[in-house]
Amino acid sequence: MPVTAFDSALTAPLLSDPDVAALIDDRATARAMVEVERALSRVQGRLGVIPAEAADTIDTALDGFMPDIEALGAGMRTAGVPIVSLVVQLREAVGPAGRDYVHAGATSQDIYDTAQLLCHAAAADHMAARLDRVIAQLSGLADRHRQTVMAGRTRTQLAIPISFGAKVAGWLAPLKRHRHRLAAVRKDLLTVQFGGAAGSLAALGDRGLDVADGLADELGLERAAAPWHTARDGVLGLGAWLAGVTGSLGKIGADLLLMGQNEVAEIRTGGGGGSSAMPQKANPVGVEMLVTLARSNATHLSGLHHAAIQEHERGGPGWTLEWISLPPMILATASALRIATEILDGLTVNAARMRDNLGLETGLIMAEALTTALEAHLGKTEAQALVKQACLHAPAAGRSVADLLRDRTDASVDWDAAADPLTYLGASDQIIDRVLSL
Amino acid sequence: MPVTAFDSALTAPLLSDPDVAALIDDRATARAMVEVERALSRVQGRLGVIPAEAADTIDTALDGFMPDIEALGAGMRTAGVPIVSLVVQLREAVGPAGRDYVHAGATSQDIYDTAQLLCHAAAADHMAARLDRVIAQLSGLADRHRQTVMAGRTRTQLAIPISFGAKVAGWLAPLKRHRHRLAAVRKDLLTVQFGGAAGSLAALGDRGLDVADGLADELGLERAAAPWHTARDGVLGLGAWLAGVTGSLGKIGADLLLMGQNEVAEIRTGGGGGSSAMPQKANPVGVEMLVTLARSNATHLSGLHHAAIQEHERGGPGWTLEWISLPPMILATASALRIATEILDGLTVNAARMRDNLGLETGLIMAEALTTALEAHLGKTEAQALVKQACLHAPAAGRSVADLLRDRTDASVDWDAAADPLTYLGASDQIIDRVLSL
Amino acid sequence: MPVTAFDSALTAPLLSDPDVAALIDDRATARAMVEVERALSRVQGRLGVIPAEAADTIDTALDGFMPDIEALGAGMRTAGVPIVSLVVQLREAVGPAGRDYVHAGATSQDIYDTAQLLCHAAAADHMAARLDRVIAQLSGLADRHRQTVMAGRTRTQLAIPISFGAKVAGWLAPLKRHRHRLAAVRKDLLTVQFGGAAGSLAALGDRGLDVADGLADELGLERAAAPWHTARDGVLGLGAWLAGVTGSLGKIGADLLLMGQNEVAEIRTGGGGGSSAMPQKANPVGVEMLVTLARSNATHLSGLHHAAIQEHERGGPGWTLEWISLPPMILATASALRIATEILDGLTVNAARMRDNLGLETGLIMAEALTTALEAHLGKTEAQALVKQACLHAPAAGRSVADLLRDRTDASVDWDAAADPLTYLGASDQIIDRVLSL
Amino acid sequence: MPVTAFDSALTAPLLSDPDVAALIDDRATARAMVEVERALSRVQGRLGVIPAEAADTIDTALDGFMPDIEALGAGMRTAGVPIVSLVVQLREAVGPAGRDYVHAGATSQDIYDTAQLLCHAAAADHMAARLDRVIAQLSGLADRHRQTVMAGRTRTQLAIPISFGAKVAGWLAPLKRHRHRLAAVRKDLLTVQFGGAAGSLAALGDRGLDVADGLADELGLERAAAPWHTARDGVLGLGAWLAGVTGSLGKIGADLLLMGQNEVAEIRTGGGGGSSAMPQKANPVGVEMLVTLARSNATHLSGLHHAAIQEHERGGPGWTLEWISLPPMILATASALRIATEILDGLTVNAARMRDNLGLETGLIMAEALTTALEAHLGKTEAQALVKQACLHAPAAGRSVADLLRDRTDASVDWDAAADPLTYLGASDQIIDRVLSL
Repeated sequence: MPVTAFDSALTAPLLSDPDVAALIDDRATARAMVEVERALSRVQGRLGVIPAEAADTIDTALDGFMPDIEALGAGMRTAGVPIVSLVVQLREAVGPAGRDYVHAGATSQDIYDTAQLLCHAAAADHMAARLDRVIAQLSGLADRHRQTVMAGRTRTQLAIPISFGAKVAGWLAPLKRHRHRLAAVRKDLLTVQFGGAAGSLAALGDRGLDVADGLADELGLERAAAPWHTARDGVLGLGAWLAGVTGSLGKIGADLLLMGQNEVAEIRTGGGGGSSAMPQKANPVGVEMLVTLARSNATHLSGLHHAAIQEHERGGPGWTLEWISLPPMILATASALRIATEILDGLTVNAARMRDNLGLETGLIMAEALTTALEAHLGKTEAQALVKQACLHAPAAGRSVADLLRDRTDASVDWDAAADPLTYLGASDQIIDRVLSL
Repeated sequence: MPVTAFDSALTAPLLSDPDVAALIDDRATARAMVEVERALSRVQGRLGVIPAEAADTIDTALDGFMPDIEALGAGMRTAGVPIVSLVVQLREAVGPAGRDYVHAGATSQDIYDTAQLLCHAAAADHMAARLDRVIAQLSGLADRHRQTVMAGRTRTQLAIPISFGAKVAGWLAPLKRHRHRLAAVRKDLLTVQFGGAAGSLAALGDRGLDVADGLADELGLERAAAPWHTARDGVLGLGAWLAGVTGSLGKIGADLLLMGQNEVAEIRTGGGGGSSAMPQKANPVGVEMLVTLARSNATHLSGLHHAAIQEHERGGPGWTLEWISLPPMILATASALRIATEILDGLTVNAARMRDNLGLETGLIMAEALTTALEAHLGKTEAQALVKQACLHAPAAGRSVADLLRDRTDASVDWDAAADPLTYLGASDQIIDRVLSL
Repeated sequence: MPVTAFDSALTAPLLSDPDVAALIDDRATARAMVEVERALSRVQGRLGVIPAEAADTIDTALDGFMPDIEALGAGMRTAGVPIVSLVVQLREAVGPAGRDYVHAGATSQDIYDTAQLLCHAAAADHMAARLDRVIAQLSGLADRHRQTVMAGRTRTQLAIPISFGAKVAGWLAPLKRHRHRLAAVRKDLLTVQFGGAAGSLAALGDRGLDVADGLADELGLERAAAPWHTARDGVLGLGAWLAGVTGSLGKIGADLLLMGQNEVAEIRTGGGGGSSAMPQKANPVGVEMLVTLARSNATHLSGLHHAAIQEHERGGPGWTLEWISLPPMILATASALRIATEILDGLTVNAARMRDNLGLETGLIMAEALTTALEAHLGKTEAQALVKQACLHAPAAGRSVADLLRDRTDASVDWDAAADPLTYLGASDQIIDRVLSL
Repeated sequence: MPVTAFDSALTAPLLSDPDVAALIDDRATARAMVEVERALSRVQGRLGVIPAEAADTIDTALDGFMPDIEALGAGMRTAGVPIVSLVVQLREAVGPAGRDYVHAGATSQDIYDTAQLLCHAAAADHMAARLDRVIAQLSGLADRHRQTVMAGRTRTQLAIPISFGAKVAGWLAPLKRHRHRLAAVRKDLLTVQFGGAAGSLAALGDRGLDVADGLADELGLERAAAPWHTARDGVLGLGAWLAGVTGSLGKIGADLLLMGQNEVAEIRTGGGGGSSAMPQKANPVGVEMLVTLARSNATHLSGLHHAAIQEHERGGPGWTLEWISLPPMILATASALRIATEILDGLTVNAARMRDNLGLETGLIMAEALTTALEAHLGKTEAQALVKQACLHAPAAGRSVADLLRDRTDASVDWDAAADPLTYLGASDQIIDRVLSL
């Protein structure tokens, strides 16, 4: 019975993602290991490294073969890898005619690493599609809200007016960059692992690299310059990408959480958790999870890097630590992308409240705008001093800063325009355009 | 189908622990939630907060009740807590006579936190017994090997002779300290959580603390000064303890890994993973896992601390991050303790090889001993210079440092005694005694 | 010229603390090393391990001796410890009469670890006093605001009314627990390190533990059962305490940040960063730093735990990693405590705004209170349904939930009382009392 | 007086790097901020956003201007950024003719982020050159040791013979990949930051992006699609690269540490720490630091990712946490690269000992080779069984596995060839070639 958060029947519905989980779970891994072994046999048969008939026998016998996972687990406990048990099962399934040619020249890590990256690649592809969807949603949102003015906030304080569209463009830009980065990450990751016992492929004599390259081609992977049993930079690249994506989604979550406070109320997200005792509540559970999952990945990434410090030709402690660190990162990312889409699908933008929150009665948020307007007439120093004073008096006076300034200076400023947030969006539209075309 | 390392059927046999897993898994958590709700009703019945008959009805109806875990998970997805769904199930099970009195005055987090700490306490108790066993094993080992000389190594280099017993005492001491620390950790952790919606117990009028205290007494927990919905220091204490234990076991693992290298061969650990391709190999898988699990906990502890920075009266992102961080730490610790016991049960100590590794042919490792012996006669500076020179010449000369010194000085040193590692164990025996009586 | 954040002249004023820095900086460490060597000589002179006159010579010569720190650093680069260079300097300072008796029987790590813990203890004592001050401030605040009603918020949403005093008590409780925990942490940490080359004290013959115990007594430290060169649990205890304290302060920071948003405006913190462009702004810089420093410590604690996995009798990589991890944690904690005091000194509580934020016009926040009041008359199910409906209608109706309920039911509820947040503070006062007497 | 490890005069000589420190220290940062402000004025003068004469005045006045760093630090403490104080100083330096046009339209973060990335880019360039040097050293080493046979070790146990050249190629490959990755990392990082108060460049009216683009061009940076005040993916890319490089160097360190144990003695590294008490010792301090610095970066990377979860348009807590996390990573990487070069310069390879460690007397390490040789004659199953048995008997029999096999089978195997490790290097040479041409 599962215990930890991404598998527990209690918490996985909140934190994990069944679609992506199915691409990397025990079944998928077991199947991928079989497929790597099959592909290896096919390649070796083709190259004459093993008899062609044996290769055929293996390929046929293992077509669709599903190993006994419990037995793999038992083998794992003893051997620290599931492959010893796997090979026993495969030989049994293949029968006398081919059994001696199964797993020829390979080491456990060759099979397990390659199988895992096939699973991880499938997961990455799935996530890429989800990321495309989030990007599309945010693109639409940015475009639709070019004229929706709201408070720009810096260090949690009201700063100047911005458009909600520009804010969304700020969320979108890093996600588009992550999307573009995936190709390089994928390429680094999707490199065949095939080195034999200690990376030299010695058991295959002078055919080692032919087999390694053939296996890469057969599986649609990159050929390897060298086995990467203890050179895990490709895996780290995936980890950085996952933590990058969840970090960017976590930032969106942090913003939405703040915007969805009752006192701010600029957005509402659909769904949300109710409370039995407080019927008025709608907890922004999904939004919170974007933050949770980002921090989970930020933490696990550290484990992944510690895991990369491995000994000699193949290492145990680090490699195993990698198995602990990476799957929760993949699931967190898949889940965060799914949740982001759900949130964006159900997002209600309260443009009126956004405008209200600008506090235009006093218009303190227009201080920079008014200073800018005044500078042309008074110079920076005097303009700043005047505006600062007006800002100090406006709240108590119950008047707007612009009104006070109008009284206090005869500079020919169009005060209504200067105090209108829509006139003070600067390059927002151009920035949105640039982000949309990233 | 499980995916992550402590639950996957592939890797859990290696990394997790079924006994402790059963104490904190979904079933155990679900049962514990029911027991907390039952205890709450009993206490409230006794105090007259709810009708005594209703309390009886609830207590009886929920005796042994096992919630539908899938439904709890579905509720979790929407609400971010499983309690909304739990309460629905409980009310259904209790029926009309008592249903209105279930969960009275409680908030979801009261039930979930208290249920979890009951599970965690059971796990801690189980681990305490395992730790006692490891301590007993190491105590015996330290005591038996008081006279087993071996190389003390510092910064990976041979330093001076030590006894294996003293080395083991060095492993043992922090584990005994961890054992003693557990009482305080347990007390801090095992504090009832009961604060109602926002910590004020307002729904219970002036009976809030009576109920809270009664619930603590009923469950054998500490009474709380205040609800700790967003004050997670008790949980952090458990986390620190878990990471402390695995860290100390990880240090043992690191040592055993080094001692078990073929070139060192001072110990062998039983079991161990074989290799299909290299029949001579016996991989020290368990020993490696001690290191892996220590690093996993060192990483997750960081997540737990980030999780403790929570908002307002009850927070979502941090609380949920805690659920991600803590269970793998508990399982890693349980597993590391089990593995340690297995390793110590199967440990073969090769005293002859330990002695061989001292390299007494040249006796460089006796340099400090010989310097100490000479100092009485020549003073420190001259003694050091003489020994240093002898150390430089001994390997090429094919003679021992002591032999060379015997030739090069007429100081009346008993060179045979001075060159015998058994005479240079210093306070080792006393240190072992002290550690055994910690 | 310094580069990293706790030392840089640009950032240290924001992030570090000069008082505590002075207790653990290079000068303080160098002086502490000298004092440990002096104390060692005194003890050894008293015990007859070295000539009494030599001990006197050393003690006198090194009284107030300040080593050349640059030379220590140069020695560090070669030796990985500063002690080889230190001993050269000390011998030079002591002169021929005593030089051979300096550092007798000690290993570098004995001196460096003991010197560091003396510095760390001084820092801990300083921090304890600061923590006492923060506790006193919060105690006063909690006591003064027992009747200051404000919104209790859970998962960022308005939940039920609470008193600000109770909220502060929730901040205070973990800090008081941390204060109590310090004694045990201090005791574990303040254990003399003295084991000689590989922990056996062999160079001191049968006087090893006498010297070790004498050194502990001389320095006011705990005697050690065994050297703890590679058993770093005492250091981890300090680390956990530091991260615990900053975590609890970080939670206060997170709350204050939220409460200080312009849209919430329940508190203002003094000082605060201005903006040249936006004269109206007052950035809550100190409050932000509480969060920053908490997360910094949460991260470094992980490094400290990885550092504890050390090899053999003394290890290099982990020990050095400890030096990287711990000092920023000490400075962050000292700094967070100082900032907390500054914030609390300058805190303005806006009780009127707190009340306003309850939103009593609609009174949604009183939903639980009203349900509780109605339950006695209608039973839970009907009461909940009725209140839920009223909550849905109140905003649009422009009336309060209580008003709507008054219309919709003839239950004899005192609606004015039920809708008054002051009547719904539950056990808040008792909780405050309990926390104050922790 | 510095306190933390990368700045302390005690520890920085061991852990930091003065050359790279000088590129990112307070002075360098202060100068870079001035240069960004100057460049901004030049661009704005050219574009007519400010008067050309004012731009000239500013450019001239600030040429070589070095701000008062202590004053910047004092400003930092209040404002959380050094720019408010910087601008005061710059205006003072510029004098009345230009002072109003300094810093026009910029926000503090624009200047600080851009200044920092200029410093970080300089550091990255410096590190790239160091990495090239390490790559060249390892390339030579790999090429020279194609025929140096040694034990390949997996999970700390002897596995099969490999060549030292192939082992070095395994170290080299990820470093070459890191080198290639730097271009993309650099490009993502070196993007101008210029968004004004809240990212809209509103204070510059319709000239915002012209100025931003002009500033990018002027400074040799990439133009930005949007300001990245709270989109820190470019910074994360640098962090991942740094931790990747130190991780790969840490793996080399871990290997060298193991190879340099007295019992293994396959390499010696120059320099190394002596011990006053143990004249025979040469501690591999530099090698240890490769591991230390890798783990430091693995930990700080997590902080950097937590730092990336920032609020709204500009955030304080995360941004500041970034300042804590990144500089130690840069210094650790610079230092690790320098140390790696020093180690490789002083590396002594003991090829005789490497060969000895193969244990060819018994030749267990040739088990896979012998199995492979026998398979052609007996089939896999029988070959494996036979070799396994021979492996079990060889040590006690005092004969080699090949000798025993020669007796026990009449298969026509060239046993001398099969037992010669040089015949069993498989694809090692080709792999070296591939890595050299990466």
